[in-house]
Amino acid sequence: MSDTLLRLMAVLNDRKYADADSSYVASLYAAGTDKILKKLGEEATETVIAGKAGDKQQIIYETADLWFHSMVLLAHNDIDVEAVLHELDRRFGLSGLEEKASRSKK
Amino acid sequence: MSDTLLRLMAVLNDRKYADADSSYVASLYAAGTDKILKKLGEEATETVIAGKAGDKQQIIYETADLWFHSMVLLAHNDIDVEAVLHELDRRFGLSGLEEKASRSKK
Amino acid sequence: MSDTLLRLMAVLNDRKYADADSSYVASLYAAGTDKILKKLGEEATETVIAGKAGDKQQIIYETADLWFHSMVLLAHNDIDVEAVLHELDRRFGLSGLEEKASRSKK
Amino acid sequence: MSDTLLRLMAVLNDRKYADADSSYVASLYAAGTDKILKKLGEEATETVIAGKAGDKQQIIYETADLWFHSMVLLAHNDIDVEAVLHELDRRFGLSGLEEKASRSKK
Repeated sequence: MSDTLLRLMAVLNDRKYADADSSYVASLYAAGTDKILKKLGEEATETVIAGKAGDKQQIIYETADLWFHSMVLLAHNDIDVEAVLHELDRRFGLSGLEEKASRSKK
Repeated sequence: MSDTLLRLMAVLNDRKYADADSSYVASLYAAGTDKILKKLGEEATETVIAGKAGDKQQIIYETADLWFHSMVLLAHNDIDVEAVLHELDRRFGLSGLEEKASRSKK
Repeated sequence: MSDTLLRLMAVLNDRKYADADSSYVASLYAAGTDKILKKLGEEATETVIAGKAGDKQQIIYETADLWFHSMVLLAHNDIDVEAVLHELDRRFGLSGLEEKASRSKK
Repeated sequence: MSDTLLRLMAVLNDRKYADADSSYVASLYAAGTDKILKKLGEEATETVIAGKAGDKQQIIYETADLWFHSMVLLAHNDIDVEAVLHELDRRFGLSGLEEKASRSKK
Protein backbone atom coordinates (compact mmCIF):
# COMPACT_ATOMS: atom_id res chain seq x y z
CA MET A 1 0.00 0.00 0.00
CA SER A 2 2.73 2.40 0.99
CA ASP A 3 4.29 2.06 -2.44
CA THR A 4 1.21 3.15 -4.32
CA LEU A 5 2.57 6.59 -5.15
CA LEU A 6 5.88 5.17 -6.37
CA ARG A 7 4.15 2.67 -8.61
CA LEU A 8 1.73 5.33 -9.90
CA MET A 9 4.71 7.56 -10.66
CA ALA A 10 6.27 4.75 -12.70
CA VAL A 11 3.05 4.35 -14.68
CA LEU A 12 2.82 8.12 -15.29
CA ASN A 13 6.40 8.23 -16.53
CA ASP A 14 5.71 5.22 -18.72
CA ARG A 15 2.76 6.94 -20.36
CA LYS A 16 5.06 9.60 -21.78
CA TYR A 17 5.79 7.11 -24.52
CA ALA A 18 2.14 6.28 -25.21
CA ASP A 19 -0.08 7.67 -27.96
CA ALA A 20 -2.32 10.53 -26.89
CA ASP A 21 -5.24 8.50 -28.21
CA SER A 22 -4.45 5.43 -26.17
CA SER A 23 -4.40 6.85 -22.66
CA TYR A 24 -6.00 9.66 -20.66
CA VAL A 25 -2.64 10.57 -19.15
CA ALA A 26 -0.93 10.64 -22.53
CA SER A 27 -3.70 12.94 -23.79
CA LEU A 28 -3.01 15.32 -20.88
CA TYR A 29 0.72 15.40 -21.68
CA ALA A 30 -0.08 16.08 -25.33
CA ALA A 31 -2.52 18.88 -24.43
CA GLY A 32 0.21 20.50 -22.33
CA THR A 33 0.77 22.44 -19.14
CA ASP A 34 -2.35 24.64 -19.22
CA LYS A 35 -4.64 21.63 -19.62
CA ILE A 36 -2.94 19.81 -16.72
CA LEU A 37 -3.17 22.91 -14.49
CA LYS A 38 -6.82 23.38 -15.43
CA LYS A 39 -7.56 19.80 -14.39
CA LEU A 40 -5.68 20.32 -11.12
CA GLY A 41 -7.80 23.42 -10.41
CA GLU A 42 -10.99 21.52 -11.24
CA GLU A 43 -10.14 18.68 -8.90
CA ALA A 44 -9.22 21.10 -6.11
CA THR A 45 -12.63 22.78 -6.51
CA GLU A 46 -14.36 19.39 -6.41
CA THR A 47 -12.45 18.49 -3.24
CA VAL A 48 -13.60 21.77 -1.65
CA ILE A 49 -17.21 21.02 -2.63
CA ALA A 50 -16.96 17.48 -1.19
CA GLY A 51 -15.30 18.83 1.97
CA LYS A 52 -18.02 21.43 2.46
CA ALA A 53 -20.66 18.72 2.02
CA GLY A 54 -18.81 16.58 4.59
CA ASP A 55 -19.26 13.58 2.30
CA LYS A 56 -16.48 11.15 3.29
CA GLN A 57 -16.69 8.90 0.25
CA GLN A 58 -16.62 11.93 -2.05
CA ILE A 59 -13.69 13.49 -0.13
CA ILE A 60 -11.69 10.27 -0.67
CA TYR A 61 -12.63 10.14 -4.34
CA GLU A 62 -11.84 13.80 -5.07
CA THR A 63 -8.61 13.79 -3.05
CA ALA A 64 -7.46 10.79 -5.11
CA ASP A 65 -8.29 12.74 -8.28
CA LEU A 66 -6.45 15.82 -6.97
CA TRP A 67 -3.33 13.85 -6.06
CA PHE A 68 -3.43 11.98 -9.34
CA HIS A 69 -3.46 15.19 -11.36
CA SER A 70 -0.76 16.66 -9.08
CA MET A 71 1.39 13.69 -10.04
CA VAL A 72 0.67 14.21 -13.73
CA LEU A 73 2.00 17.76 -13.23
CA LEU A 74 5.10 16.34 -11.49
CA ALA A 75 5.71 13.81 -14.27
CA HIS A 76 5.17 16.45 -16.96
CA ASN A 77 7.93 18.49 -15.28
CA ASP A 78 10.23 15.45 -14.80
CA ILE A 79 9.88 15.70 -11.03
CA ASP A 80 9.78 12.49 -8.99
CA VAL A 81 7.07 12.10 -6.36
CA GLU A 82 9.86 11.29 -3.89
CA ALA A 83 10.87 14.96 -4.05
CA VAL A 84 7.45 15.90 -2.68
CA LEU A 85 7.63 13.21 0.01
CA HIS A 86 11.13 14.43 0.96
CA GLU A 87 9.77 17.98 1.24
CA LEU A 88 6.99 16.75 3.55
CA ASP A 89 9.56 14.80 5.59
CA ARG A 90 11.80 17.82 5.84
CA ARG A 91 9.13 20.33 6.65
CA PHE A 92 7.06 18.43 9.14
CA GLY A 93 9.90 16.72 10.96
CA LEU A 94 8.84 13.17 10.29
CA SER A 95 12.25 11.68 10.72
CA GLY A 96 11.39 10.00 13.99
CA LEU A 97 12.59 12.16 16.83
CA GLU A 98 10.18 15.03 16.38
CA GLU A 99 7.32 12.70 15.73
CA LYS A 100 8.13 10.90 18.97
CA ALA A 101 8.28 14.23 20.77
CA SER A 102 4.89 15.23 19.40
CA ARG A 103 3.42 11.90 20.42
CA SER A 104 4.70 12.20 23.96
CA LYS A 105 2.53 15.30 24.35
CA LYS A 106 -0.53 13.10 24.60
CA MET B 1 10.49 7.32 2.35
CA SER B 2 7.44 5.40 1.20
CA ASP B 3 5.94 5.62 4.68
CA THR B 4 6.05 9.41 4.81
CA LEU B 5 2.31 9.79 4.28
CA LEU B 6 1.47 7.19 6.92
CA ARG B 7 3.72 8.86 9.47
CA LEU B 8 2.37 12.31 8.58
CA MET B 9 -1.16 10.95 9.02
CA ALA B 10 -0.21 9.72 12.51
CA VAL B 11 1.13 13.16 13.40
CA LEU B 12 -2.01 14.86 12.06
CA ASN B 13 -4.24 12.56 14.09
CA ASP B 14 -2.08 13.15 17.13
CA ARG B 15 -2.50 16.92 16.85
CA LYS B 16 -6.24 16.57 17.42
CA TYR B 17 -5.35 16.45 21.11
CA ALA B 18 -3.07 19.50 21.00
CA ASP B 19 -3.91 23.05 22.02
CA ALA B 20 -4.84 25.33 19.11
CA ASP B 21 -2.13 27.69 20.31
CA SER B 22 0.59 25.06 20.28
CA SER B 23 0.44 23.85 16.69
CA TYR B 24 -0.49 25.15 13.25
CA VAL B 25 -2.46 21.97 12.53
CA ALA B 26 -4.34 22.19 15.81
CA SER B 27 -5.21 25.81 14.97
CA LEU B 28 -6.67 24.64 11.62
CA TYR B 29 -8.81 21.98 13.32
CA ALA B 30 -10.04 24.59 15.81
CA ALA B 31 -10.86 27.07 13.02
CA GLY B 32 -12.92 24.38 11.32
CA THR B 33 -13.86 23.03 7.90
CA ASP B 34 -14.14 26.35 6.03
CA LYS B 35 -10.67 27.43 7.09
CA ILE B 36 -9.16 24.08 6.04
CA LEU B 37 -10.94 24.22 2.67
CA LYS B 38 -9.80 27.80 2.15
CA LYS B 39 -6.19 26.76 2.76
CA LEU B 40 -6.61 23.84 0.36
CA GLY B 41 -7.88 26.24 -2.32
CA GLU B 42 -5.00 28.63 -1.67
CA GLU B 43 -2.40 25.91 -2.02
CA ALA B 44 -4.02 24.63 -5.21
CA THR B 45 -3.82 28.14 -6.68
CA GLU B 46 -0.18 28.41 -5.66
CA THR B 47 0.55 25.06 -7.31
CA VAL B 48 -1.11 26.31 -10.52
CA ILE B 49 1.01 29.49 -10.40
CA ALA B 50 4.20 27.46 -9.86
CA GLY B 51 3.21 25.05 -12.63
CA LYS B 52 2.55 27.88 -15.06
CA ALA B 53 5.95 29.37 -14.19
CA GLY B 54 7.55 25.94 -14.78
CA ASP B 55 9.54 26.42 -11.57
CA LYS B 56 10.45 22.89 -10.45
CA GLN B 57 11.51 23.77 -6.91
CA GLN B 58 8.30 25.78 -6.42
CA ILE B 59 6.16 22.99 -7.89
CA ILE B 60 7.66 20.56 -5.35
CA TYR B 61 7.14 23.02 -2.49
CA GLU B 62 3.55 23.90 -3.39
CA THR B 63 2.55 20.31 -4.12
CA ALA B 64 3.84 19.37 -0.66
CA ASP B 65 1.73 22.18 0.80
CA LEU B 66 -1.31 21.06 -1.19
CA TRP B 67 -0.98 17.42 -0.11
CA PHE B 68 -0.35 18.44 3.48
CA HIS B 69 -3.55 20.48 3.62
CA SER B 70 -5.44 17.66 1.82
CA MET B 71 -4.34 15.39 4.65
CA VAL B 72 -5.49 17.89 7.27
CA LEU B 73 -8.91 17.71 5.56
CA LEU B 74 -8.78 13.90 5.69
CA ALA B 75 -7.81 13.89 9.37
CA HIS B 76 -10.50 16.45 10.20
CA ASN B 77 -13.03 14.06 8.66
CA ASP B 78 -11.55 10.96 10.36
CA ILE B 79 -10.47 9.55 7.01
CA ASP B 80 -7.20 7.61 6.80
CA VAL B 81 -4.78 8.46 4.00
CA GLU B 82 -4.78 4.76 3.13
CA ALA B 83 -8.33 5.19 1.84
CA VAL B 84 -7.00 7.65 -0.75
CA LEU B 85 -4.11 5.35 -1.65
CA HIS B 86 -6.57 2.45 -2.02
CA GLU B 87 -8.70 4.58 -4.32
CA LEU B 88 -5.65 5.37 -6.46
CA ASP B 89 -4.74 1.67 -6.51
CA ARG B 90 -8.26 0.70 -7.47
CA ARG B 91 -8.74 3.35 -10.10
CA PHE B 92 -5.45 3.25 -11.88
CA GLY B 93 -4.95 -0.49 -11.76
CA LEU B 94 -1.71 -0.49 -9.85
CA SER B 95 -2.11 -3.96 -8.47
CA GLY B 96 0.49 -5.44 -10.74
CA LEU B 97 -1.23 -7.03 -13.67
CA GLU B 98 -2.59 -3.91 -15.30
CA GLU B 99 0.58 -2.02 -14.67
CA LYS B 100 2.46 -4.80 -16.42
CA ALA B 101 -0.02 -4.67 -19.27
CA SER B 102 0.40 -0.94 -19.61
CA ARG B 103 4.16 -1.31 -19.60
CA SER B 104 4.08 -3.95 -22.30
CA LYS B 105 2.54 -1.35 -24.62
CA LYS B 106 5.94 0.24 -24.98
CA MET C 1 -22.11 49.53 -21.78
CA SER C 2 -22.60 50.19 -18.11
CA ASP C 3 -25.87 48.29 -18.15
CA THR C 4 -24.31 45.10 -19.48
CA LEU C 5 -24.48 43.30 -16.14
CA LEU C 6 -28.10 44.29 -15.57
CA ARG C 7 -29.09 43.07 -19.00
CA LEU C 8 -27.12 39.85 -18.58
CA MET C 9 -28.84 39.30 -15.23
CA ALA C 10 -32.23 39.67 -16.95
CA VAL C 11 -31.21 37.08 -19.54
CA LEU C 12 -29.98 34.69 -16.84
CA ASN C 13 -33.22 35.02 -14.90
CA ASP C 14 -35.16 34.50 -18.12
CA ARG C 15 -33.36 31.23 -18.81
CA LYS C 16 -34.82 29.71 -15.64
CA TYR C 17 -37.90 29.05 -17.73
CA ALA C 18 -36.00 27.51 -20.64
CA ASP C 19 -35.50 23.81 -21.40
CA ALA C 20 -32.17 22.41 -20.22
CA ASP C 21 -31.62 21.22 -23.78
CA SER C 22 -32.16 24.62 -25.35
CA SER C 23 -29.59 26.71 -23.50
CA TYR C 24 -26.21 26.31 -21.82
CA VAL C 25 -27.40 28.36 -18.84
CA ALA C 26 -30.55 26.32 -18.45
CA SER C 27 -28.43 23.16 -18.52
CA LEU C 28 -26.32 24.55 -15.66
CA TYR C 29 -29.42 25.32 -13.57
CA ALA C 30 -30.71 21.81 -14.23
CA ALA C 31 -27.38 20.24 -13.28
CA GLY C 32 -27.49 22.14 -9.99
CA THR C 33 -25.29 23.95 -7.49
CA ASP C 34 -22.26 21.62 -7.58
CA LYS C 35 -21.99 21.89 -11.37
CA ILE C 36 -22.22 25.70 -11.24
CA LEU C 37 -19.58 25.87 -8.49
CA LYS C 38 -17.32 23.51 -10.41
CA LYS C 39 -17.54 25.77 -13.48
CA LEU C 40 -16.79 28.81 -11.31
CA GLY C 41 -13.68 27.07 -9.96
CA GLU C 42 -12.60 26.11 -13.48
CA GLU C 43 -12.93 29.65 -14.76
CA ALA C 44 -11.03 31.03 -11.77
CA THR C 45 -8.18 28.60 -12.50
CA GLU C 46 -8.19 29.66 -16.16
CA THR C 47 -8.05 33.31 -15.12
CA VAL C 48 -5.05 32.55 -12.89
CA ILE C 49 -3.32 30.76 -15.78
CA ALA C 50 -4.01 33.69 -18.14
CA GLY C 51 -2.83 36.17 -15.49
CA LYS C 52 0.39 34.26 -14.91
CA ALA C 53 0.99 34.20 -18.68
CA GLY C 54 0.35 37.97 -18.77
CA ASP C 55 -1.82 37.45 -21.87
CA LYS C 56 -4.15 40.47 -21.96
CA GLN C 57 -6.64 39.06 -24.45
CA GLN C 58 -6.87 35.82 -22.48
CA ILE C 59 -7.26 37.71 -19.18
CA ILE C 60 -10.22 39.60 -20.64
CA TYR C 61 -11.74 36.41 -22.03
CA GLU C 62 -11.34 34.38 -18.85
CA THR C 63 -12.49 37.20 -16.56
CA ALA C 64 -15.65 37.48 -18.66
CA ASP C 65 -16.15 33.71 -18.25
CA LEU C 66 -15.53 33.95 -14.49
CA TRP C 67 -17.99 36.82 -14.05
CA PHE C 68 -20.56 35.11 -16.24
CA HIS C 69 -20.48 31.95 -14.13
CA SER C 70 -20.53 34.07 -10.94
CA MET C 71 -23.75 35.57 -12.22
CA VAL C 72 -25.20 32.14 -12.96
CA LEU C 73 -24.51 31.33 -9.29
CA LEU C 74 -26.24 34.56 -8.25
CA ALA C 75 -29.28 33.83 -10.44
CA HIS C 76 -29.45 30.23 -9.21
CA ASN C 77 -29.68 31.64 -5.67
CA ASP C 78 -32.20 34.35 -6.62
CA ILE C 79 -29.67 37.08 -5.88
CA ASP C 80 -29.62 40.20 -8.06
CA VAL C 81 -26.29 41.42 -9.42
CA GLU C 82 -27.15 44.81 -7.93
CA ALA C 83 -26.59 43.31 -4.48
CA VAL C 84 -22.96 42.63 -5.47
CA LEU C 85 -22.56 46.11 -6.94
CA HIS C 86 -24.04 47.60 -3.75
CA GLU C 87 -21.54 45.60 -1.69
CA LEU C 88 -18.67 46.94 -3.81
CA ASP C 89 -20.06 50.48 -3.43
CA ARG C 90 -20.39 50.05 0.31
CA ARG C 91 -17.04 48.44 0.90
CA PHE C 92 -14.83 50.50 -1.30
CA GLY C 93 -16.46 53.85 -0.63
CA LEU C 94 -17.43 54.63 -4.18
CA SER C 95 -20.24 56.98 -3.30
CA GLY C 96 -18.32 60.05 -4.30
CA LEU C 97 -16.87 61.60 -1.18
CA GLU C 98 -14.43 58.87 -0.28
CA GLU C 99 -13.33 58.45 -3.85
CA LYS C 100 -12.60 62.17 -3.95
CA ALA C 101 -10.72 61.86 -0.68
CA SER C 102 -8.63 59.01 -2.05
CA ARG C 103 -7.90 60.97 -5.19
CA SER C 104 -6.76 64.00 -3.20
CA LYS C 105 -4.01 61.81 -1.73
CA LYS C 106 -2.13 62.11 -5.00
CA MET D 1 -25.44 51.84 -9.43
CA SER D 2 -24.68 50.70 -12.95
CA ASP D 3 -21.54 52.81 -12.97
CA THR D 4 -20.06 51.12 -9.90
CA LEU D 5 -17.55 49.10 -11.88
CA LEU D 6 -16.41 52.13 -13.89
CA ARG D 7 -15.89 54.17 -10.73
CA LEU D 8 -14.13 51.29 -8.99
CA MET D 9 -11.86 50.94 -12.02
CA ALA D 10 -10.97 54.65 -11.74
CA VAL D 11 -10.10 54.19 -8.07
CA LEU D 12 -7.97 51.11 -8.83
CA ASN D 13 -6.08 52.98 -11.53
CA ASP D 14 -5.63 55.91 -9.18
CA ARG D 15 -4.05 53.67 -6.53
CA LYS D 16 -1.16 52.87 -8.88
CA TYR D 17 0.30 56.17 -7.71
CA ALA D 18 -0.24 55.50 -4.00
CA ASP D 19 2.31 54.24 -1.48
CA ALA D 20 2.15 50.49 -0.82
CA ASP D 21 1.80 51.34 2.86
CA SER D 22 -1.16 53.65 2.37
CA SER D 23 -3.60 51.36 0.59
CA TYR D 24 -4.46 47.67 0.37
CA VAL D 25 -4.68 47.88 -3.42
CA ALA D 26 -1.32 49.63 -3.68
CA SER D 27 0.19 46.88 -1.51
CA LEU D 28 -1.16 44.26 -3.94
CA TYR D 29 0.36 46.06 -6.95
CA ALA D 30 3.68 46.29 -5.11
CA ALA D 31 3.59 42.59 -4.19
CA GLY D 32 3.03 41.75 -7.85
CA THR D 33 1.20 39.35 -10.13
CA ASP D 34 1.58 36.16 -8.06
CA LYS D 35 0.12 37.82 -4.98
CA ILE D 36 -2.84 39.19 -6.95
CA LEU D 37 -3.49 35.78 -8.54
CA LYS D 38 -3.24 34.09 -5.17
CA LYS D 39 -5.87 36.45 -3.76
CA LEU D 40 -8.09 35.79 -6.78
CA GLY D 41 -7.82 32.04 -6.17
CA GLU D 42 -8.60 32.51 -2.48
CA GLU D 43 -11.71 34.54 -3.17
CA ALA D 44 -12.90 32.02 -5.77
CA THR D 45 -12.54 29.24 -3.17
CA GLU D 46 -14.46 31.31 -0.63
CA THR D 47 -17.23 31.91 -3.19
CA VAL D 48 -17.43 28.14 -3.80
CA ILE D 49 -17.68 27.51 -0.04
CA ALA D 50 -20.41 30.15 0.32
CA GLY D 51 -22.24 28.76 -2.72
CA LYS D 52 -22.12 25.21 -1.34
CA ALA D 53 -23.47 26.48 2.00
CA GLY D 54 -26.25 28.29 0.09
CA ASP D 55 -25.65 31.35 2.28
CA LYS D 56 -26.99 34.28 0.25
CA GLN D 57 -25.33 37.04 2.27
CA GLN D 58 -22.00 35.24 2.09
CA ILE D 59 -22.37 34.61 -1.67
CA ILE D 60 -22.89 38.35 -2.20
CA TYR D 61 -19.93 39.22 0.00
CA GLU D 62 -17.53 36.71 -1.57
CA THR D 63 -18.62 37.49 -5.13
CA ALA D 64 -17.88 41.16 -4.44
CA ASP D 65 -14.44 40.15 -3.15
CA LEU D 66 -13.85 37.95 -6.20
CA TRP D 67 -14.84 40.68 -8.66
CA PHE D 68 -12.82 43.26 -6.77
CA HIS D 69 -9.66 41.16 -7.01
CA SER D 70 -10.44 40.39 -10.67
CA MET D 71 -10.44 44.13 -11.27
CA VAL D 72 -7.13 44.55 -9.44
CA LEU D 73 -5.74 41.98 -11.91
CA LEU D 74 -7.23 43.97 -14.81
CA ALA D 75 -5.76 47.24 -13.53
CA HIS D 76 -2.37 45.63 -12.91
CA ASN D 77 -2.38 44.60 -16.58
CA ASP D 78 -3.63 47.99 -17.81
CA ILE D 79 -6.89 46.46 -18.97
CA ASP D 80 -10.10 48.47 -18.63
CA VAL D 81 -13.14 46.79 -17.10
CA GLU D 82 -15.06 47.91 -20.19
CA ALA D 83 -13.11 45.33 -22.19
CA VAL D 84 -14.63 42.60 -19.99
CA LEU D 85 -18.12 44.11 -20.29
CA HIS D 86 -17.67 44.30 -24.09
CA GLU D 87 -16.66 40.63 -24.13
CA LEU D 88 -19.80 39.72 -22.15
CA ASP D 89 -21.89 41.83 -24.54
CA ARG D 90 -20.29 40.20 -27.54
CA ARG D 91 -20.46 36.65 -26.30
CA PHE D 92 -23.90 36.55 -24.81
CA GLY D 93 -25.64 38.63 -27.43
CA LEU D 94 -26.85 41.37 -25.15
CA SER D 95 -27.14 43.97 -27.85
CA GLY D 96 -30.89 43.84 -27.92
CA LEU D 97 -31.98 41.62 -30.77
CA GLU D 98 -30.74 38.32 -29.42
CA GLU D 99 -31.96 39.09 -25.96
CA LYS D 100 -35.39 39.78 -27.38
CA ALA D 101 -35.23 36.52 -29.30
CA SER D 102 -34.33 34.61 -26.17
CA ARG D 103 -37.15 36.24 -24.28
CA SER D 104 -39.71 35.34 -26.93
CA LYS D 105 -38.94 31.68 -26.21
CA LYS D 106 -41.00 31.90 -23.03
